[in-house]
Amino acid sequence: MTSPVRLALLGCGTVGGEVVRLLHEQSADLAARIGAPIEIAGIAVRRLNRDRGDLPVDPALFTTDALGLVKRDDVDVVVEVVGGIEPARGWLVEALRAGKSVVTANKALLAEDGAALHDAAAEGGGDLYYEASVAGAIPLLRPLRESLHGDRITQVTGIVNGTTNFILSAMDATGAGFAEALEEATELGYAEADPTADVEGFDAAAKAAILASLAFHTRVSAADVHREGITEVTAADVASAKAMGCTIKLLCIAARGADAAGRETVNVRVHPAMIPLTHPLASVGDAFNAVFVEAEAAGQLMFYGRGAGGAPTASAVLGDVVAVARNRLAGVRAASESAYADLSVRPMGEALTRYHISLDVADRPGVLAAVAGVFARHDVSIATVRQGSAAAGTSGGGRDDDAELVIVTHVAPDAALAATVGELRGLDIVRSVTSVLRVEGGF
Amino acid sequence: MTSPVRLALLGCGTVGGEVVRLLHEQSADLAARIGAPIEIAGIAVRRLNRDRGDLPVDPALFTTDALGLVKRDDVDVVVEVVGGIEPARGWLVEALRAGKSVVTANKALLAEDGAALHDAAAEGGGDLYYEASVAGAIPLLRPLRESLHGDRITQVTGIVNGTTNFILSAMDATGAGFAEALEEATELGYAEADPTADVEGFDAAAKAAILASLAFHTRVSAADVHREGITEVTAADVASAKAMGCTIKLLCIAARGADAAGRETVNVRVHPAMIPLTHPLASVGDAFNAVFVEAEAAGQLMFYGRGAGGAPTASAVLGDVVAVARNRLAGVRAASESAYADLSVRPMGEALTRYHISLDVADRPGVLAAVAGVFARHDVSIATVRQGSAAAGTSGGGRDDDAELVIVTHVAPDAALAATVGELRGLDIVRSVTSVLRVEGGF
Repeated sequence: MTSPVRLALLGCGTVGGEVVRLLHEQSADLAARIGAPIEIAGIAVRRLNRDRGDLPVDPALFTTDALGLVKRDDVDVVVEVVGGIEPARGWLVEALRAGKSVVTANKALLAEDGAALHDAAAEGGGDLYYEASVAGAIPLLRPLRESLHGDRITQVTGIVNGTTNFILSAMDATGAGFAEALEEATELGYAEADPTADVEGFDAAAKAAILASLAFHTRVSAADVHREGITEVTAADVASAKAMGCTIKLLCIAARGADAAGRETVNVRVHPAMIPLTHPLASVGDAFNAVFVEAEAAGQLMFYGRGAGGAPTASAVLGDVVAVARNRLAGVRAASESAYADLSVRPMGEALTRYHISLDVADRPGVLAAVAGVFARHDVSIATVRQGSAAAGTSGGGRDDDAELVIVTHVAPDAALAATVGELRGLDIVRSVTSVLRVEGGF
Repeated sequence: MTSPVRLALLGCGTVGGEVVRLLHEQSADLAARIGAPIEIAGIAVRRLNRDRGDLPVDPALFTTDALGLVKRDDVDVVVEVVGGIEPARGWLVEALRAGKSVVTANKALLAEDGAALHDAAAEGGGDLYYEASVAGAIPLLRPLRESLHGDRITQVTGIVNGTTNFILSAMDATGAGFAEALEEATELGYAEADPTADVEGFDAAAKAAILASLAFHTRVSAADVHREGITEVTAADVASAKAMGCTIKLLCIAARGADAAGRETVNVRVHPAMIPLTHPLASVGDAFNAVFVEAEAAGQLMFYGRGAGGAPTASAVLGDVVAVARNRLAGVRAASESAYADLSVRPMGEALTRYHISLDVADRPGVLAAVAGVFARHDVSIATVRQGSAAAGTSGGGRDDDAELVIVTHVAPDAALAATVGELRGLDIVRSVTSVLRVEGGF
């Protein structure tokens, strides 16, 4: 039999442990699929004597010297499941420069400085694979990277953070506010003790950068992504969405557009938005992930599955390990980074969005005309207006002369919409702006 | 710039025309993604002087001599969108043996004799890609072929025929019978003049064979697939499904199992089945396709999109063209056929299924005991029984001493379930068996 492909594993937590378990359980299948057995050359961990249950691996393989392990001549493939920018970046750049192939699940690093990794891979001639970095086990990056290369992707819209999707699903199901739903998510283990990365949208923004880079053949980093979390989504927002036949999701959106001169651009953003219940993403509940892709010829596609967890993430890691191991045996390299399009990233203010706005207004003649005038001044076109008595649950409820105005706009530059809302807030006849939400999914 | 990759196109109907159009419109992008321009060397058609609209291609490229075109030395890649077994098989075997790479959408040929194509590719050293053969534009084969190679797939369940899904969706929505729904589908262009390949399940069976081969690393051909179409699905069946909170879909199922000796086997089948409305496949309506994949580590995944049509199919073809063109430039070959597992294909009678059975019975004491006795004799365990007065719309309705029994079984070998139904039909107290449907999706 061919000599083994030797693998260095950096990190042995939930995902790393599952990688070890699967390598052991499926060793015969993996060897048949690759054409050579896989052998673990070493496992870098922070603490040697942590209890790792009954992991089917020789304890002598553990080391605290990750850099030393990465540099060893008998290592072909480096698998990194530690996360974070440093020291992971240093290890992986070292490995790639030395010609080793790298499989990583590190979305933060890829979004922060993917360029350093891609450049090091080009220098060393090894492969860089990272299917596990976005949407866990869902095979998504390879389709974007390869299957859709004969097509022109126009937009990618994803639910890529399980924690926030769990929280928003709970708010939708029970009418709870954000704080209460977060508490439930924490108790059930869906949210971490410090949920900032999830609820403020940092995790989704990193994934958005990775998806946008692949979909548009352009380097997009986390700093290019407009980011809003879900901490300010209220029970009133959720109720407003329901009244419109919608639900609220934290979406990551990467969309093709054009600047004033007609040059192609891309806008990448993460924010909560209303989508109609009839949209395929609306029924993606709990901690599931899904990514909706629109391409010129292919039309609408959706990829759905578990976005996190040890086993699903390990499945994605091992799929990549099989691919890079095969490439090494064949003496070839996969397609390298494709960033030829080099589109400019358009700021959020220029992105075309739609708003849903609920206002608590004085119930007297001329109010609608005054409100409509504000939209007109900002060149924002109104799609629908619904007028009723003030909804229960809004702050100004109870006064007889109150009325509620619910306005949905047509698409307009986000800056114009934001300025419209700003001016509405200052209007005398507007008692309060009870809900402002972007609207996606073409309803 | 690198010298062009030269492409022979076999067939220029709906899909072929779209391939030509996309090659033209996206030539700059494709060249950048591949690293070399793509050039059409020739287009084989049956009739030279058919009106092809304003296809952006030199008319001198058309030829009726497909075999001659395939043999030309200046052809690198052959794209086949003709369909059918012969003459396509002869052309593609010739091309592959000569070392050319092949991209084909020909599901019938792959399911009938994929072995001939894979063997020819191995002999010649070129690539054989066929993403467009199953579920049109949905990137599905590459994930199965590559992304999930580190995992163990346990079952693939798909809605892979748009025509039958349109018909069943219509029956579900309107209560129409099969004939009426088929007529509507034909009028709207969703069904062909001769709908046999679709409604009898031949098309789905070919796709099932291709999916099973990839998922289980085993050669599976159309002849190995148990096939039942939808022509016998009645309005009463649809009503029964609704009463159970289910809908009826034509499913293609490839499932891992074990024989009596504990050896791993695979069962591949196409038949209509009830699935619960809560299952992700239940909401796949109209002519859409979706494939649900269960893997040991990855858990549940679903791929959704347009399964047919010129542009979606062309998108899948071109994604493959980019991949094989890149491989040729790099002087490498993609992973070849993986059939190492070589599992034996288990006959339908041994497959483990569940049945939903509606009976019109005489309403007198002892009936349930007699019926239950039949199930027990065949070692079939009953999950639920619902007893009521005979449902409206069943054939024997109207008699006062009628009752309806609705039985859902636990899983049992399909042969035992079929034998149970056979014996029930012969029972004096059973006036008629009004509906028999398999149940899938674990409800």
